[in-house]
Amino acid sequence: MVKIAIMGMGVVGGGVADIILKNADTLRNKINSVDKDGIEVKYIMDRRTFEGHPLADRVTGDIDKILSDEEVSIVVEAMGGLHPAFEFTKRALESGKNVVTSNKAVVSAYGPELLAIAAEKNVSYMFEASVGGGIPIIRPLTNCLTANKIKSVYGILNGTTNYILTEMKRNGTAFSDALSDAQKKGYAEADPTADISGADTCRKICILANLTYGIYIVPEDVYYEGITEITTEHLALADKLGYKIKLAGCAYAIDGDKLAVYTAPVALHEDHSIASVDGVYNAVSVTGDYVGDLLFCGQGAGALPTASAVVGDIVDVIKYKPSRNVWKNVGESRLVDYNEIESGYFVCIGGKIDANDITREFGKVKVVLGEDSKAFVAPSATLIQHKAKLERLVNKGAEILADLRILEA
Amino acid sequence: MVKIAIMGMGVVGGGVADIILKNADTLRNKINSVDKDGIEVKYIMDRRTFEGHPLADRVTGDIDKILSDEEVSIVVEAMGGLHPAFEFTKRALESGKNVVTSNKAVVSAYGPELLAIAAEKNVSYMFEASVGGGIPIIRPLTNCLTANKIKSVYGILNGTTNYILTEMKRNGTAFSDALSDAQKKGYAEADPTADISGADTCRKICILANLTYGIYIVPEDVYYEGITEITTEHLALADKLGYKIKLAGCAYAIDGDKLAVYTAPVALHEDHSIASVDGVYNAVSVTGDYVGDLLFCGQGAGALPTASAVVGDIVDVIKYKPSRNVWKNVGESRLVDYNEIESGYFVCIGGKIDANDITREFGKVKVVLGEDSKAFVAPSATLIQHKAKLERLVNKGAEILADLRILEA
Repeated sequence: MVKIAIMGMGVVGGGVADIILKNADTLRNKINSVDKDGIEVKYIMDRRTFEGHPLADRVTGDIDKILSDEEVSIVVEAMGGLHPAFEFTKRALESGKNVVTSNKAVVSAYGPELLAIAAEKNVSYMFEASVGGGIPIIRPLTNCLTANKIKSVYGILNGTTNYILTEMKRNGTAFSDALSDAQKKGYAEADPTADISGADTCRKICILANLTYGIYIVPEDVYYEGITEITTEHLALADKLGYKIKLAGCAYAIDGDKLAVYTAPVALHEDHSIASVDGVYNAVSVTGDYVGDLLFCGQGAGALPTASAVVGDIVDVIKYKPSRNVWKNVGESRLVDYNEIESGYFVCIGGKIDANDITREFGKVKVVLGEDSKAFVAPSATLIQHKAKLERLVNKGAEILADLRILEA
Repeated sequence: MVKIAIMGMGVVGGGVADIILKNADTLRNKINSVDKDGIEVKYIMDRRTFEGHPLADRVTGDIDKILSDEEVSIVVEAMGGLHPAFEFTKRALESGKNVVTSNKAVVSAYGPELLAIAAEKNVSYMFEASVGGGIPIIRPLTNCLTANKIKSVYGILNGTTNYILTEMKRNGTAFSDALSDAQKKGYAEADPTADISGADTCRKICILANLTYGIYIVPEDVYYEGITEITTEHLALADKLGYKIKLAGCAYAIDGDKLAVYTAPVALHEDHSIASVDGVYNAVSVTGDYVGDLLFCGQGAGALPTASAVVGDIVDVIKYKPSRNVWKNVGESRLVDYNEIESGYFVCIGGKIDANDITREFGKVKVVLGEDSKAFVAPSATLIQHKAKLERLVNKGAEILADLRILEA
């Protein structure tokens, strides 16, 4: 019998306990080459008591009891937040326990230190659930695609903001109302700052970039921007041009050794593979030199998909004890400044400006006008190839309401 | 240094050799926790001599030389076909070599025997490349999703037929011309029978079903049907109803212990996640009880994506020596008869039939007429909920030109 401990019995920890109880037979079968008796939750660490829960007799508040129990080989850290999740993870690894987590904050902030301890102690530190919820993305990146030099990895990595943007687009709901709706449905937390500011996506793209490029990027060094400035008008104007607006985390190699890494709302042509990924779904696109383009898509959030990924890691630890290369801190040296990353732009233009001026400036490109627009009045929107062109428009009296990078396929 | 042998230096075998030479540094880094020196191709088994190739001095026609060389730990079987690929694979496993292959014919026909030998000899038999080309699908199914009971796995598993259907739909190209075009571009083989008959897709869905449900399904027991009867008119009529036609391999659990497994052209609503997967791309949809719906998409054929998957398996063997549960032959007992699987249908109707009769028969459902149709003449098309309704139409003089299952999301 493989014995595990779950630290933090919130939505993810509770989901893990649920899966281990309900799919016990499936799991026993999956690990029977290593252990015939399946998986047992020996401890649950939480301040609450969970009376009536079938595992209520396993609840403890004492981490030392868990760490000193040699029967416990795997600790699930599902506490969330940086502290004491980081300290508890560190102690668990130092005690020779394998640790499985969904905590992207801890992984992105302390990954190098924790991976180094895991390597030293010859245990696994696993975090498939930290990016993309239930979507298998970390294992494909680190195992299946090892043959490839990865050109880019990017995607929609936050279900809350994708739900909000989808509602704004479909129903013309204002941002604040869409956010309230997401909170009511349990898709957004009471404090939604990490999601809507882009910070959550930023942590996740850093984790993917670290795994892909074998380095460590400090999330604080990476440009991020959220969706709080996106309006229904932006979405409607983009739609008229055949584009969708999504919050994307992006990482790609440029000029050999340099990397572009950022999080921002981007404009995607409606034919782009991730443009139609709506609601709470996430999608990750990976391009490798041999494999070409791959797309991974699924529910990016929610207790059960995330718990599914955690349990997948538990089974892998039992069967293979996977090791990850330790991420080396390369500082900012390999990161290209956000403002120097080249791309096209989707631009919303306000102010009183002669529509002919726009046409003259942008040549034959399509310009669309907002709902309440008259001939010579913005808001309007267009696509430009390079940001520099904007300055000339500003000189003519245009007000730039929004400029979003166009993410090419 | 990990030493491998490649049996069969065709497109896939050549691609594997290419990746190992060109991405040597990347690969060395990936396996450095196990071996610091990377991977070397020690033997290539082929009848040709490959003069001028950087590995020409490794070519041999003698399998015994490979199997008796204790330095060789991994054999790549990229010969294609059943024989002697099966016999060589068996001998390699019996000699204690790990075997990695892209050969879906051998895996689907001899999987149980070969997996049993691998288990007995404590070596790995790996075949990520046998389904979906470069798309990581087998490892996600067997590792990442272990927490789940899988409700269904289905998808577009053959790039050749997807290319043909895409060309027929986009450009109105007739089947035979689209096939010739695919052959010219190298997307179809000189003898395209396995692809267009659905046999290739059938083998692949059997492999996925075996892995998903831990059983062995004999491909010969499974209903399959290809795309040779699909016309541009079917595609156009489906389009008018908002549907796309794709060749799909499908496996799903019904009524607890029963399985529906089949390969057939199906009608997919245009909003279905795999409906817009065109050209040589493949897509696999997986639904699990905890993870919900997942989609994996990428290039399903071609030397390099397939070779990428082979090399991913090689690295996994080096690092983890993965084991697979042996597939148990369950005969036909768990398979539901194809004709008893319930579904809706997209139906093309020919013959002289009163359009009012169709409307009366099907109630308020939409009926569309073909290009050259007049008021009372078919071909027309409609969607019905159950096949039984067709009989009544036939009784009224309707000729059923095509009836395709509707695959729901």
